[in-house]
Amino acid sequence: MALNARPAGARTRGTGGPTLAVVGATGAVGAVLIDLLSTRRDVYGEIRLVASPRSAGRTLALRGADVEVAPLAPEVFDGVDIAVFGVPDAVAARWVPVATGRGAVAVDNSGAFRMAPDVPLVVPEVNPERVRRRPRGIVASPSCTTLSMIMVIGALHRRYGLRELVVSSYQAASGVGLEGVDTLYEQMEKVGGDRALGNRAGDLRCAVGEFGPFPAPLAMNVVPWAGEVRDGGWSSEELKIREESRKVLGLRDLRVTATCVRVPVVTAHSLSVHAVFEDRVDQREAQAVLAGSPGVVLCDNPETQEFPTPADVVGTDPAWVGRVRRSLDDPKALDLFLCGDNLRNGAALNTAQIAELVAAELTP
Amino acid sequence: MALNARPAGARTRGTGGPTLAVVGATGAVGAVLIDLLSTRRDVYGEIRLVASPRSAGRTLALRGADVEVAPLAPEVFDGVDIAVFGVPDAVAARWVPVATGRGAVAVDNSGAFRMAPDVPLVVPEVNPERVRRRPRGIVASPSCTTLSMIMVIGALHRRYGLRELVVSSYQAASGVGLEGVDTLYEQMEKVGGDRALGNRAGDLRCAVGEFGPFPAPLAMNVVPWAGEVRDGGWSSEELKIREESRKVLGLRDLRVTATCVRVPVVTAHSLSVHAVFEDRVDQREAQAVLAGSPGVVLCDNPETQEFPTPADVVGTDPAWVGRVRRSLDDPKALDLFLCGDNLRNGAALNTAQIAELVAAELTP
Repeated sequence: MALNARPAGARTRGTGGPTLAVVGATGAVGAVLIDLLSTRRDVYGEIRLVASPRSAGRTLALRGADVEVAPLAPEVFDGVDIAVFGVPDAVAARWVPVATGRGAVAVDNSGAFRMAPDVPLVVPEVNPERVRRRPRGIVASPSCTTLSMIMVIGALHRRYGLRELVVSSYQAASGVGLEGVDTLYEQMEKVGGDRALGNRAGDLRCAVGEFGPFPAPLAMNVVPWAGEVRDGGWSSEELKIREESRKVLGLRDLRVTATCVRVPVVTAHSLSVHAVFEDRVDQREAQAVLAGSPGVVLCDNPETQEFPTPADVVGTDPAWVGRVRRSLDDPKALDLFLCGDNLRNGAALNTAQIAELVAAELTP
Repeated sequence: MALNARPAGARTRGTGGPTLAVVGATGAVGAVLIDLLSTRRDVYGEIRLVASPRSAGRTLALRGADVEVAPLAPEVFDGVDIAVFGVPDAVAARWVPVATGRGAVAVDNSGAFRMAPDVPLVVPEVNPERVRRRPRGIVASPSCTTLSMIMVIGALHRRYGLRELVVSSYQAASGVGLEGVDTLYEQMEKVGGDRALGNRAGDLRCAVGEFGPFPAPLAMNVVPWAGEVRDGGWSSEELKIREESRKVLGLRDLRVTATCVRVPVVTAHSLSVHAVFEDRVDQREAQAVLAGSPGVVLCDNPETQEFPTPADVVGTDPAWVGRVRRSLDDPKALDLFLCGDNLRNGAALNTAQIAELVAAELTP
């Protein structure tokens, strides 16, 4: 433990703001959450950092001080007003009810409660009013893939009325957590710039060794799979995009189809989206709508080779969109390409913003 | 020159088959063409290897012998029956007419003549009959991105009647030739498995140095651009997919929209395709149609994590397809993911097959 670390669970500030617990503080999303808590406007009193007993005891820098990570246990939620969860589904399923049972509002970044009818699924730029309707005391944040897209598409929906989405993803390794990041780096190190290797499967499979959380080598490859197997050959990640888009936009019958593909990028998901609307669309107007939308940055000038790429958006807050075109054979359809930092824009930032909406309610 | 090399333009065989010239023998597509000519059924008499004066004089292995590459000049086409071109558009535009002017049938892999109304655009598995209608003596082969897709979609079109395509591509570096391959390898070598680097644009841009033929770093990134700028924010590559699909399938009003994205893969293009048909589709039947189509391999079992990836298809002849699903909100639409070796399936093989169709005509 660092010399100046405070004991686990100690109050880090004396302000009158609500007490926050960050569960999953040592994970991929947790690291970004802690960064955001140290850099955004400080609305909290005490902040407790919590992780699995395996990761607890470590000391993390938060709001300019070192804070020791407490082990996840029921008592850690005593006196907590808001508990944000950046943990796997199974951990959230077990511990979110513990937090709400002890009086905290839970803001959950996992998939455990997203589709529950009595849990609101919130993107503050799109449907902030839903935060207040939380009969179970739980507010869910969408999956990272849906999130960047819905910020962009939500803005266009308000103007043109959304009817259909056809989505293809280019998802980063960190979407499966730190294990995905480690696996990609290890594979990248092994293949390096080895020209003799090429990218033939046999050689590549031998060279990269373990596939880690991916079903095939990811370095020098793309893998058309993310999540678990569902009926009809769909992946859980593809169904999530459909279900979550419908729920956040409040469009129960929205036609959505998605193909999710993992690419050898560490962080930042990209999506190619074909969106069909009720009204006729106009390229320049759509670009203006996007440029004026909160949380969205328009980066769109092919003449000067301006378009978002994962490398450009890593570490940034907004959803970036470019390549906005009106479909040549459908005056009611737009094609576009967007990128968002899946840990930040697609997870931690949305969770932090939801928590701030709740904090504003709780603060007199 | 190797000791056993034959002088430029010498006959390499004495069979009665037609004389073939391979123009662009030292390029990325040329290398695969020469491999195919050495391994497929040998239907030619003499084969001349031709390249720019800069690359001429080199010796390449062909049909078990070493052959010297002749410099591109009008006389090289004297006595040639079939000239296959694997060269950039501008070179083809200038030299294809020289070849046909000297009596050769030109099979052109470039984009120079693809959309000319009096030049057939041929995929032997889809529209072989078009080879014979060539008023200018030119037969064109589609672009690599269109080609793998059209072999898959052509089979489904015959069964269900195609109405619309929404395409997102995952295109390999070798799609822009050897310069693209070199650039990616150099960038891969520089970034290696450097965790400190991450994939933030500033660091990545510094680390990779030159972008080569790409408008942004390609290692650890995806770049939503391929080709030149066209009206409405479209890229030439995206318009090619639309125009060539319509021409090969003979569907003048087919609705097509595409977003082309470059990925850090050396060879093999992938495409995510949403295809809407006239008739209702069935997942199992569509899989059976694809499994029974010439030039197509079905690789589709999510339960056992079977789907095509670029690494699996590099160096193979067919177009590979998997992730075949019936769209959840449209009983007339299929979603699928396909991969093809862009140099082989997407270029050299189709060119070689067209040349063989012409050779069969010319051989008594």
